[in-house]
Amino acid sequence: MSTDYLLLSLDNPVFQAYVLTASIMTLKLMLQPWMTVQRMMKVRAGYRSPEDAKRSPLNPEPRPGQLEPNEYVERSRRINLNDLESIPGFLVAGFLLVLVDPPVLLAQVLLWGFVVTRALHFIAYLTAQLHDVRATLWTLNSLSVIVTAGYVLAQAL
Amino acid sequence: MSTDYLLLSLDNPVFQAYVLTASIMTLKLMLQPWMTVQRMMKVRAGYRSPEDAKRSPLNPEPRPGQLEPNEYVERSRRINLNDLESIPGFLVAGFLLVLVDPPVLLAQVLLWGFVVTRALHFIAYLTAQLHDVRATLWTLNSLSVIVTAGYVLAQAL
Amino acid sequence: MSTDYLLLSLDNPVFQAYVLTASIMTLKLMLQPWMTVQRMMKVRAGYRSPEDAKRSPLNPEPRPGQLEPNEYVERSRRINLNDLESIPGFLVAGFLLVLVDPPVLLAQVLLWGFVVTRALHFIAYLTAQLHDVRATLWTLNSLSVIVTAGYVLAQAL
Repeated sequence: MSTDYLLLSLDNPVFQAYVLTASIMTLKLMLQPWMTVQRMMKVRAGYRSPEDAKRSPLNPEPRPGQLEPNEYVERSRRINLNDLESIPGFLVAGFLLVLVDPPVLLAQVLLWGFVVTRALHFIAYLTAQLHDVRATLWTLNSLSVIVTAGYVLAQAL
Repeated sequence: MSTDYLLLSLDNPVFQAYVLTASIMTLKLMLQPWMTVQRMMKVRAGYRSPEDAKRSPLNPEPRPGQLEPNEYVERSRRINLNDLESIPGFLVAGFLLVLVDPPVLLAQVLLWGFVVTRALHFIAYLTAQLHDVRATLWTLNSLSVIVTAGYVLAQAL
Repeated sequence: MSTDYLLLSLDNPVFQAYVLTASIMTLKLMLQPWMTVQRMMKVRAGYRSPEDAKRSPLNPEPRPGQLEPNEYVERSRRINLNDLESIPGFLVAGFLLVLVDPPVLLAQVLLWGFVVTRALHFIAYLTAQLHDVRATLWTLNSLSVIVTAGYVLAQAL
């Protein structure tokens, strides 16, 4: 029987955990810019392109300073950059993990551990908790991907 | 018969659409920095690293200000950042879509819809169209990935 | 016999090369922010969020200027951004390459060529070599992904 058939089927609990966590994390990755847009629209500031300061339906009353960094908007951009540094690596490492057929519990802990620590990191970042809180959650989150990629590497050697 | 065999074969029209759109979008992702480089070389400005202001064959006549942001170069960098926020999410969501075996037409609309709206967004950004035009195209582009990931998530639940 | 079974098995030398190079590059992608953190901790500067300038165990003696860009830290951030522009594209293009069943030698040259030129580019960037050296290595690195994605596209057409 083809092993791949089992590996990439939703009947495989590791693959199912991957599809769930990967689609949730892809949604997170894609929705963060919507928060940035919502914040830009709310304060009508934090734009980046010169043309965004022109009068238009989205910007009915242009004023000076709209192109300068705005901390309320920048916070969402920093969260987005942090997602970009973390989520694509998770998505690939998690898929490779499925293909090397790991113990189910190990895979579930690594995959869901990433989702939970990323959610907590997001809350800590959004609410401007102390650096130490955010850094601790980031470390746990990053370690889950590093352990995943390290496990895959060890299996392939 | 192994379902995976059919899913990941170019005989599967969904997989073929994915391989075409994913390779085109990967090329877009990789080629945008080449535009940034071409623009930096043209204006000999917009460099980011201190060592880039040293005299060298690529920079035969160093002058002050070469390390300051240059809008002509920055525009290409912003387009690149926008690609980074969008294309990796598309590449993963699209692959997961193939694996959950969607209706062919739905998959083709989502995959090619992303490519078309990204191309139009690129043109709008490059030619500095009004924010409203670029924002509308970005929204459609982002929605295609969000719908894709949402569909995958619903299938896995 | 299912072709996929062979393609996505570690018995397939192309897939094995991909799993090795992809897990190494995912580790590189995830470890670069650790260098940024290590540098921020060393100089206690280059922070980005207002709350990072507060007194805390990680920042026992706050001082003005901790939120301003610090070149020692910024260099690691630029390397990270360069990774973000390159590695996700490689990870996807390389996987698609496996699925279109390329000649083994071609695949090994493209996959390992990316790893080697990325490592050399990293060293050139970290040690602030002349722009020309870094640019040459970047060009070779980027070309390996472009050729990979172009090959995949040609196979799918």
